[in-house]
Amino acid sequence: MPKIVDHGERRRIIAEATWRVIERDGFDRATFRAIAKELGYTPSVVAHYFRDKDRLMEFAFKLGCEDAFSRIERDAQHLPPGLPRLKIALEHMMPDSLGRDISAKATLNYWGAAANTPAMVAVHRQSYLAWRALLRRFLSEAAAAGQVASAFDIDLESSILIALIDGIMVGSALESSLYPRSVQRTLIHRALARLSTDYEAGKPSSAVVSRKVKTTTAKAAKHA
Amino acid sequence: MPKIVDHGERRRIIAEATWRVIERDGFDRATFRAIAKELGYTPSVVAHYFRDKDRLMEFAFKLGCEDAFSRIERDAQHLPPGLPRLKIALEHMMPDSLGRDISAKATLNYWGAAANTPAMVAVHRQSYLAWRALLRRFLSEAAAAGQVASAFDIDLESSILIALIDGIMVGSALESSLYPRSVQRTLIHRALARLSTDYEAGKPSSAVVSRKVKTTTAKAAKHA
Repeated sequence: MPKIVDHGERRRIIAEATWRVIERDGFDRATFRAIAKELGYTPSVVAHYFRDKDRLMEFAFKLGCEDAFSRIERDAQHLPPGLPRLKIALEHMMPDSLGRDISAKATLNYWGAAANTPAMVAVHRQSYLAWRALLRRFLSEAAAAGQVASAFDIDLESSILIALIDGIMVGSALESSLYPRSVQRTLIHRALARLSTDYEAGKPSSAVVSRKVKTTTAKAAKHA
Repeated sequence: MPKIVDHGERRRIIAEATWRVIERDGFDRATFRAIAKELGYTPSVVAHYFRDKDRLMEFAFKLGCEDAFSRIERDAQHLPPGLPRLKIALEHMMPDSLGRDISAKATLNYWGAAANTPAMVAVHRQSYLAWRALLRRFLSEAAAAGQVASAFDIDLESSILIALIDGIMVGSALESSLYPRSVQRTLIHRALARLSTDYEAGKPSSAVVSRKVKTTTAKAAKHA
Protein backbone atom coordinates (compact mmCIF):
# COMPACT_ATOMS: atom_id res chain seq x y z
CA MET A 1 0.00 0.00 0.00
CA PRO A 2 2.68 2.61 0.85
CA LYS A 3 4.39 1.64 -2.43
CA ILE A 4 1.30 2.65 -4.46
CA VAL A 5 1.02 6.03 -2.72
CA ASP A 6 4.67 6.63 -3.41
CA HIS A 7 4.14 5.82 -7.09
CA GLY A 8 1.47 8.53 -7.45
CA GLU A 9 3.54 11.00 -5.47
CA ARG A 10 6.59 10.32 -7.61
CA ARG A 11 4.58 10.94 -10.79
CA ARG A 12 3.35 14.23 -9.35
CA ILE A 13 6.87 15.32 -8.37
CA ILE A 14 8.12 14.54 -11.88
CA ALA A 15 5.18 16.40 -13.45
CA GLU A 16 5.83 19.51 -11.34
CA ALA A 17 9.53 19.43 -12.23
CA THR A 18 8.53 19.13 -15.90
CA TRP A 19 6.54 22.37 -15.77
CA ARG A 20 9.41 24.13 -14.06
CA VAL A 21 11.86 23.03 -16.76
CA ILE A 22 9.47 23.97 -19.58
CA GLU A 23 8.70 27.31 -17.95
CA ARG A 24 12.41 28.10 -17.68
CA ASP A 25 13.90 26.47 -20.79
CA GLY A 26 11.03 25.73 -23.20
CA PHE A 27 9.46 22.54 -24.49
CA ASP A 28 12.33 21.32 -26.65
CA ARG A 29 14.85 21.40 -23.82
CA ALA A 30 12.57 19.59 -21.38
CA THR A 31 14.08 16.19 -22.09
CA PHE A 32 13.87 13.26 -19.67
CA ARG A 33 17.51 13.99 -18.94
CA ALA A 34 16.87 17.66 -18.04
CA ILE A 35 13.81 16.77 -15.95
CA ALA A 36 15.72 14.06 -14.09
CA LYS A 37 18.59 16.47 -13.47
CA GLU A 38 16.14 19.00 -12.00
CA LEU A 39 15.22 16.38 -9.39
CA GLY A 40 18.60 14.77 -8.88
CA TYR A 41 17.26 11.54 -10.43
CA THR A 42 18.77 9.47 -13.21
CA PRO A 43 16.85 9.67 -16.52
CA SER A 44 15.84 6.02 -16.11
CA VAL A 45 13.73 6.94 -13.07
CA VAL A 46 11.67 9.33 -15.21
CA ALA A 47 11.45 6.68 -17.94
CA HIS A 48 10.19 4.19 -15.35
CA TYR A 49 7.14 6.37 -14.67
CA PHE A 50 6.43 7.72 -18.17
CA ARG A 51 6.69 5.95 -21.52
CA ASP A 52 7.68 9.07 -23.43
CA LYS A 53 7.75 12.84 -23.22
CA ASP A 54 4.28 13.35 -24.69
CA ARG A 55 2.71 11.08 -22.03
CA LEU A 56 4.56 12.99 -19.31
CA MET A 57 3.40 16.34 -20.70
CA GLU A 58 -0.19 15.12 -20.94
CA PHE A 59 -0.11 13.88 -17.34
CA ALA A 60 1.38 17.18 -16.14
CA PHE A 61 -1.18 19.32 -18.01
CA LYS A 62 -4.09 17.18 -16.77
CA LEU A 63 -2.80 17.28 -13.21
CA GLY A 64 -2.37 21.07 -13.26
CA CYS A 65 -5.98 21.50 -14.42
CA GLU A 66 -7.38 18.96 -11.96
CA ASP A 67 -5.56 20.64 -9.08
CA ALA A 68 -7.02 24.02 -10.07
CA PHE A 69 -10.52 22.52 -10.37
CA SER A 70 -10.16 20.94 -6.90
CA ARG A 71 -9.20 24.30 -5.41
CA ILE A 72 -12.21 25.88 -7.11
CA GLU A 73 -14.61 23.23 -5.73
CA ARG A 74 -13.04 23.51 -2.28
CA ASP A 75 -13.52 27.29 -2.15
CA ALA A 76 -16.85 27.43 -4.00
CA GLN A 77 -18.68 25.43 -1.33
CA HIS A 78 -18.03 28.22 1.18
CA LEU A 79 -19.44 30.91 -1.14
CA PRO A 80 -22.98 31.86 -2.18
CA PRO A 81 -24.05 30.31 -5.52
CA GLY A 82 -23.58 32.14 -8.83
CA LEU A 83 -21.28 35.10 -9.42
CA PRO A 84 -19.17 34.77 -6.24
CA ARG A 85 -18.30 31.18 -7.20
CA LEU A 86 -17.71 32.21 -10.81
CA LYS A 87 -15.28 34.85 -9.60
CA ILE A 88 -13.26 32.44 -7.49
CA ALA A 89 -13.20 29.96 -10.41
CA LEU A 90 -11.73 32.53 -12.79
CA GLU A 91 -9.25 33.73 -10.18
CA HIS A 92 -8.00 30.20 -9.59
CA MET A 93 -7.37 29.84 -13.33
CA MET A 94 -5.35 33.06 -13.58
CA PRO A 95 -1.78 32.15 -14.56
CA ASP A 96 -0.33 33.71 -11.42
CA SER A 97 -2.61 31.66 -9.20
CA LEU A 98 -1.63 28.33 -10.62
CA GLY A 99 1.58 28.01 -8.64
CA ARG A 100 4.36 25.69 -9.51
CA ASP A 101 2.24 22.99 -11.10
CA ILE A 102 1.18 25.00 -14.14
CA SER A 103 2.19 28.41 -15.49
CA ALA A 104 1.67 30.69 -18.44
CA LYS A 105 4.83 30.00 -20.44
CA ALA A 106 4.61 26.26 -19.84
CA THR A 107 0.95 26.32 -20.90
CA LEU A 108 1.82 28.11 -24.15
CA ASN A 109 4.50 25.52 -24.80
CA TYR A 110 1.96 22.77 -24.19
CA TRP A 111 -0.63 24.36 -26.49
CA GLY A 112 1.94 24.90 -29.24
CA ALA A 113 2.98 21.27 -29.12
CA ALA A 114 -0.65 20.11 -28.76
CA ALA A 115 -1.88 21.99 -31.83
CA ASN A 116 -0.50 19.28 -34.12
CA THR A 117 -0.49 16.31 -31.72
CA PRO A 118 -3.88 14.53 -31.45
CA ALA A 119 -3.24 12.81 -28.07
CA MET A 120 -2.09 16.07 -26.48
CA VAL A 121 -4.99 18.07 -27.87
CA ALA A 122 -7.37 15.36 -26.59
CA VAL A 123 -6.08 15.92 -23.04
CA HIS A 124 -6.61 19.66 -23.43
CA ARG A 125 -10.18 19.10 -24.64
CA GLN A 126 -10.97 16.70 -21.81
CA SER A 127 -9.69 19.18 -19.22
CA TYR A 128 -11.59 22.02 -20.89
CA LEU A 129 -14.80 19.98 -20.89
CA ALA A 130 -14.51 19.92 -17.09
CA TRP A 131 -13.57 23.63 -17.04
CA ARG A 132 -16.56 24.54 -19.21
CA ALA A 133 -18.87 22.40 -17.03
CA LEU A 134 -17.72 24.29 -13.93
CA LEU A 135 -18.36 27.67 -15.56
CA ARG A 136 -21.75 26.55 -16.88
CA ARG A 137 -22.77 25.39 -13.41
CA PHE A 138 -21.89 28.70 -11.77
CA LEU A 139 -23.47 30.67 -14.63
CA SER A 140 -26.67 28.63 -14.24
CA GLU A 141 -26.67 29.39 -10.54
CA ALA A 142 -26.23 33.09 -11.33
CA ALA A 143 -29.17 32.98 -13.75
CA ALA A 144 -31.35 31.14 -11.21
CA ALA A 145 -30.46 33.69 -8.53
CA GLY A 146 -31.33 36.62 -10.80
CA GLN A 147 -27.77 37.92 -10.67
CA VAL A 148 -27.48 38.30 -14.46
CA ALA A 149 -29.39 39.82 -17.36
CA SER A 150 -32.46 38.01 -18.66
CA ALA A 151 -31.20 37.64 -22.25
CA PHE A 152 -28.41 35.36 -21.24
CA ASP A 153 -26.78 32.55 -23.18
CA ILE A 154 -24.80 30.20 -20.95
CA ASP A 155 -22.85 28.60 -23.83
CA LEU A 156 -21.86 31.97 -25.18
CA GLU A 157 -20.93 33.41 -21.79
CA SER A 158 -18.81 30.40 -20.85
CA SER A 159 -16.99 30.67 -24.20
CA ILE A 160 -16.30 34.36 -23.55
CA LEU A 161 -14.91 33.64 -20.07
CA ILE A 162 -12.78 30.73 -21.31
CA ALA A 163 -11.41 32.94 -24.10
CA LEU A 164 -10.67 35.71 -21.59
CA ILE A 165 -8.66 33.42 -19.31
CA ASP A 166 -6.81 31.85 -22.25
CA GLY A 167 -6.07 35.32 -23.61
CA ILE A 168 -4.75 36.42 -20.22
CA MET A 169 -2.54 33.31 -20.29
CA VAL A 170 -1.10 34.39 -23.66
CA GLY A 171 -0.57 37.97 -22.48
CA SER A 172 0.96 36.85 -19.22
CA ALA A 173 3.43 34.55 -20.99
CA LEU A 174 4.44 36.93 -23.78
CA GLU A 175 3.92 40.43 -22.33
CA SER A 176 4.25 39.73 -18.62
CA SER A 177 4.87 43.38 -17.67
CA LEU A 178 1.43 44.32 -19.05
CA TYR A 179 -0.35 41.55 -17.12
CA PRO A 180 0.66 41.64 -13.46
CA ARG A 181 -1.66 39.88 -11.04
CA SER A 182 -3.55 43.11 -10.27
CA VAL A 183 -4.37 43.65 -13.97
CA GLN A 184 -5.41 40.01 -14.40
CA ARG A 185 -7.85 40.43 -11.50
CA THR A 186 -9.14 43.71 -12.89
CA LEU A 187 -9.85 42.18 -16.30
CA ILE A 188 -11.78 39.34 -14.66
CA HIS A 189 -13.75 41.63 -12.35
CA ARG A 190 -14.64 43.87 -15.27
CA ALA A 191 -15.95 40.91 -17.28
CA LEU A 192 -18.02 39.75 -14.29
CA ALA A 193 -19.34 43.22 -13.55
CA ARG A 194 -20.65 43.36 -17.11
CA LEU A 195 -22.55 40.14 -16.54
CA SER A 196 -24.30 41.37 -13.45
CA THR A 197 -27.78 42.88 -13.48
CA ASP A 198 -26.47 45.92 -11.60
CA TYR A 199 -24.34 46.83 -14.57
CA GLU A 200 -27.07 46.27 -17.10
CA ALA A 201 -29.31 48.66 -15.18
CA GLY A 202 -26.68 51.36 -15.65
CA LYS A 203 -25.39 51.14 -12.07
CA PRO A 204 -21.90 49.63 -12.27
CA SER A 205 -21.42 47.27 -9.34
CA SER A 206 -18.57 47.72 -6.89
CA ALA A 207 -16.62 45.12 -8.86
CA VAL A 208 -16.40 47.51 -11.83
CA VAL A 209 -13.00 49.05 -11.99
CA SER A 210 -11.52 51.72 -14.17
CA ARG A 211 -8.27 53.56 -13.67
CA LYS A 212 -7.71 53.05 -9.97
CA VAL A 213 -6.71 49.43 -10.25
CA LYS A 214 -5.39 48.93 -6.74
CA THR A 215 -8.16 50.69 -4.88
CA THR A 216 -10.90 49.01 -6.80
CA THR A 217 -9.34 45.57 -6.63
CA ALA A 218 -9.11 45.91 -2.86
CA LYS A 219 -12.72 47.02 -2.71
CA ALA A 220 -13.84 44.09 -4.88
CA ALA A 221 -11.89 41.67 -2.71
CA LYS A 222 -13.62 43.02 0.39
CA HIS A 223 -16.94 42.66 -1.41
CA ALA A 224 -16.38 38.95 -2.19
CA MET B 1 14.68 47.19 -59.88
CA PRO B 2 12.65 44.05 -60.81
CA LYS B 3 15.26 42.02 -58.92
CA ILE B 4 14.47 43.85 -55.63
CA VAL B 5 10.72 43.38 -56.00
CA ASP B 6 11.31 39.72 -56.68
CA HIS B 7 13.39 39.44 -53.50
CA GLY B 8 10.55 40.76 -51.31
CA GLU B 9 8.02 38.63 -53.14
CA ARG B 10 10.16 35.53 -52.69
CA ARG B 11 10.45 36.17 -48.95
CA ARG B 12 6.68 36.53 -48.76
CA ILE B 13 6.09 33.31 -50.70
CA ILE B 14 8.47 31.45 -48.37
CA ALA B 15 6.79 32.95 -45.28
CA GLU B 16 3.33 31.89 -46.48
CA ALA B 17 4.57 28.38 -47.21
CA THR B 18 6.09 28.29 -43.71
CA TRP B 19 2.71 28.98 -42.06
CA ARG B 20 1.09 26.29 -44.21
CA VAL B 21 3.70 23.71 -43.16
CA ILE B 22 3.48 24.68 -39.47
CA GLU B 23 -0.32 24.67 -39.58
CA ARG B 24 -0.33 21.17 -41.07
CA ASP B 25 2.69 19.51 -39.45
CA GLY B 26 3.71 21.62 -36.44
CA PHE B 27 6.70 23.77 -35.62
CA ASP B 28 9.28 21.00 -35.25
CA ARG B 29 8.63 19.56 -38.70
CA ALA B 30 8.77 22.94 -40.43
CA THR B 31 12.41 22.58 -41.42
CA PHE B 32 13.98 24.51 -44.30
CA ARG B 33 13.84 21.22 -46.17
CA ALA B 34 10.08 20.76 -45.62
CA ILE B 35 9.36 24.41 -46.47
CA ALA B 36 11.45 24.20 -49.65
CA LYS B 37 9.68 20.99 -50.64
CA GLU B 38 6.30 22.70 -50.19
CA LEU B 39 7.39 25.21 -52.85
CA GLY B 40 9.35 22.91 -55.14
CA TYR B 41 12.54 24.79 -54.19
CA THR B 42 15.84 23.36 -52.99
CA PRO B 43 16.58 24.03 -49.28
CA SER B 44 19.43 26.33 -50.31
CA VAL B 45 16.92 28.77 -51.84
CA VAL B 46 15.21 29.14 -48.43
CA ALA B 47 18.60 29.46 -46.75
CA HIS B 48 19.50 32.21 -49.24
CA TYR B 49 16.63 34.36 -47.96
CA PHE B 50 16.68 33.49 -44.24
CA ARG B 51 19.65 32.92 -41.96
CA ASP B 52 17.85 30.39 -39.78
CA LYS B 53 14.44 29.06 -38.88
CA ASP B 54 13.80 31.55 -36.05
CA ARG B 55 14.41 34.50 -38.40
CA LEU B 56 12.04 32.98 -40.95
CA MET B 57 9.37 32.43 -38.28
CA GLU B 58 9.75 35.98 -37.00
CA PHE B 59 9.43 37.40 -40.51
CA ALA B 60 6.35 35.26 -41.19
CA PHE B 61 4.62 36.26 -37.92
CA LYS B 62 5.38 39.96 -38.45
CA LEU B 63 4.17 39.81 -42.04
CA GLY B 64 0.91 38.08 -41.04
CA CYS B 65 0.20 40.80 -38.48
CA GLU B 66 1.16 43.66 -40.81
CA ASP B 67 -1.09 42.29 -43.55
CA ALA B 68 -4.00 42.12 -41.10
CA PHE B 69 -3.33 45.68 -39.90
CA SER B 70 -3.23 46.92 -43.51
CA ARG B 71 -6.60 45.32 -44.22
CA ILE B 72 -7.99 46.95 -41.06
CA GLU B 73 -6.71 50.41 -42.07
CA ARG B 74 -8.00 49.94 -45.62
CA ASP B 75 -11.52 49.06 -44.44
CA ALA B 76 -11.63 51.45 -41.47
CA GLN B 77 -11.33 54.55 -43.63
CA HIS B 78 -14.67 53.74 -45.26
CA LEU B 79 -16.44 53.36 -41.90
CA PRO B 80 -17.65 55.87 -39.29
CA PRO B 81 -15.17 56.40 -36.41
CA GLY B 82 -15.38 54.37 -33.20
CA LEU B 83 -17.26 51.10 -32.75
CA PRO B 84 -17.78 50.27 -36.46
CA ARG B 85 -14.01 50.47 -37.01
CA LEU B 86 -13.35 48.54 -33.82
CA LYS B 87 -15.65 45.80 -35.06
CA ILE B 88 -13.90 45.46 -38.41
CA ALA B 89 -10.51 45.44 -36.63
CA LEU B 90 -11.52 42.52 -34.39
CA GLU B 91 -13.08 40.66 -37.30
CA HIS B 92 -9.91 40.96 -39.35
CA MET B 93 -7.96 39.43 -36.45
CA MET B 94 -10.27 36.42 -36.11
CA PRO B 95 -8.27 33.30 -36.95
CA ASP B 96 -10.59 32.35 -39.82
CA SER B 97 -10.16 35.76 -41.42
CA LEU B 98 -6.42 35.66 -41.53
CA GLY B 99 -6.23 33.51 -44.62
CA ARG B 100 -3.19 31.57 -45.65
CA ASP B 101 -0.62 33.92 -44.22
CA ILE B 102 -1.44 33.28 -40.55
CA SER B 103 -3.70 30.80 -38.82
CA ALA B 104 -4.69 29.60 -35.37
CA LYS B 105 -2.57 26.44 -35.10
CA ALA B 106 0.47 28.12 -36.63
CA THR B 107 0.04 31.05 -34.23
CA LEU B 108 -0.06 28.71 -31.22
CA ASN B 109 3.09 27.04 -32.49
CA TYR B 110 4.73 30.45 -32.80
CA TRP B 111 3.67 31.52 -29.30
CA GLY B 112 4.85 28.24 -27.79
CA ALA B 113 8.26 28.63 -29.38
CA ALA B 114 8.36 32.36 -28.58
CA ALA B 115 7.64 31.89 -24.85
CA ASN B 116 11.27 30.96 -24.22
CA THR B 117 12.95 32.70 -27.18
CA PRO B 118 13.68 36.42 -26.58
CA ALA B 119 13.99 37.43 -30.25
CA MET B 120 10.70 35.73 -31.16
CA VAL B 121 8.85 37.22 -28.20
CA ALA B 122 10.22 40.66 -29.15
CA VAL B 123 8.59 40.34 -32.58
CA HIS B 124 5.31 39.38 -30.95
CA ARG B 125 5.52 42.41 -28.63
CA GLN B 126 6.33 44.77 -31.48
CA SER B 127 3.37 43.51 -33.52
CA TYR B 128 1.09 43.73 -30.47
CA LEU B 129 2.20 47.31 -29.78
CA ALA B 130 0.80 48.17 -33.21
CA TRP B 131 -2.32 46.06 -32.57
CA ARG B 132 -2.91 47.77 -29.21
CA ALA B 133 -2.39 51.19 -30.80
CA LEU B 134 -5.06 50.42 -33.41
CA LEU B 135 -7.55 49.33 -30.75
CA ARG B 136 -6.77 52.35 -28.57
CA ARG B 137 -7.35 54.67 -31.50
CA PHE B 138 -10.76 53.20 -32.33
CA LEU B 139 -11.73 53.09 -28.63
CA SER B 140 -10.78 56.77 -28.29
CA GLU B 141 -12.93 57.59 -31.29
CA ALA B 142 -15.80 55.66 -29.69
CA ALA B 143 -15.39 57.62 -26.44
CA ALA B 144 -15.26 60.95 -28.32
CA ALA B 145 -18.40 60.04 -30.27
CA GLY B 146 -20.28 59.11 -27.08
CA GLN B 147 -20.70 55.52 -28.24
CA VAL B 148 -19.48 54.03 -24.97
CA ALA B 149 -20.09 54.34 -21.24
CA SER B 150 -18.64 57.32 -19.42
CA ALA B 151 -16.59 55.30 -16.90
CA PHE B 152 -14.36 53.91 -19.56
CA ASP B 153 -10.72 52.89 -19.35
CA ILE B 154 -9.08 52.60 -22.75
CA ASP B 155 -6.07 50.58 -21.51
CA LEU B 156 -8.31 48.13 -19.74
CA GLU B 157 -10.74 47.78 -22.64
CA SER B 158 -7.98 47.22 -25.18
CA SER B 159 -6.46 44.54 -22.92
CA ILE B 160 -9.86 42.81 -22.67
CA LEU B 161 -10.31 42.85 -26.46
CA ILE B 162 -6.75 41.62 -27.09
CA ALA B 163 -7.29 38.80 -24.58
CA LEU B 164 -10.60 37.91 -26.23
CA ILE B 165 -9.03 37.59 -29.70
CA ASP B 166 -6.05 35.63 -28.34
CA GLY B 167 -8.42 33.34 -26.44
CA ILE B 168 -10.47 32.79 -29.60
CA MET B 169 -7.19 31.90 -31.32
CA VAL B 170 -6.48 29.25 -28.65
CA GLY B 171 -10.03 27.85 -28.84
CA SER B 172 -10.01 27.84 -32.62
CA ALA B 173 -6.70 25.92 -32.74
CA LEU B 174 -7.49 23.37 -30.02
CA GLU B 175 -11.29 23.04 -30.05
CA SER B 176 -12.08 24.06 -33.62
CA SER B 177 -15.56 22.51 -33.62
CA LEU B 178 -16.60 24.85 -30.77
CA TYR B 179 -15.30 27.96 -32.54
CA PRO B 180 -16.63 28.10 -36.10
CA ARG B 181 -16.53 31.49 -37.79
CA SER B 182 -20.13 32.27 -36.76
CA VAL B 183 -19.32 31.73 -33.07
CA GLN B 184 -16.14 33.81 -33.34
CA ARG B 185 -18.21 36.67 -34.76
CA THR B 186 -20.86 36.26 -32.07
CA LEU B 187 -18.29 36.44 -29.28
CA ILE B 188 -16.84 39.63 -30.76
CA HIS B 189 -20.23 41.25 -31.32
CA ARG B 190 -21.26 40.41 -27.77
CA ALA B 191 -18.11 42.03 -26.37
CA LEU B 192 -18.73 45.15 -28.46
CA ALA B 193 -22.40 45.32 -27.57
CA ARG B 194 -21.40 45.40 -23.90
CA LEU B 195 -19.16 48.38 -24.59
CA SER B 196 -21.88 50.41 -26.23
CA THR B 197 -23.98 52.95 -24.35
CA ASP B 198 -27.14 51.27 -25.66
CA TYR B 199 -26.34 48.17 -23.70
CA GLU B 200 -25.44 50.04 -20.54
CA ALA B 201 -28.81 51.75 -20.63
CA GLY B 202 -30.43 48.31 -20.57
CA LYS B 203 -31.31 48.35 -24.27
CA PRO B 204 -29.13 45.75 -25.97
CA SER B 205 -28.04 47.06 -29.37
CA SER B 206 -28.77 45.18 -32.57
CA ALA B 207 -25.29 43.65 -32.38
CA VAL B 208 -26.22 41.76 -29.22
CA VAL B 209 -26.79 38.15 -29.99
CA SER B 210 -27.94 35.26 -27.90
CA ARG B 211 -29.09 31.89 -29.15
CA LYS B 212 -29.94 32.68 -32.76
CA VAL B 213 -26.37 32.90 -33.95
CA LYS B 214 -27.00 32.85 -37.70
CA THR B 215 -29.88 35.32 -37.79
CA THR B 216 -28.17 37.80 -35.53
CA THR B 217 -24.82 37.54 -37.27
CA ALA B 218 -26.52 38.29 -40.59
CA LYS B 219 -28.30 41.25 -39.00
CA ALA B 220 -25.07 42.57 -37.53
CA ALA B 221 -23.30 42.21 -40.87
CA LYS B 222 -26.04 44.24 -42.53
CA HIS B 223 -25.72 46.79 -39.76
CA ALA B 224 -21.98 47.27 -40.40
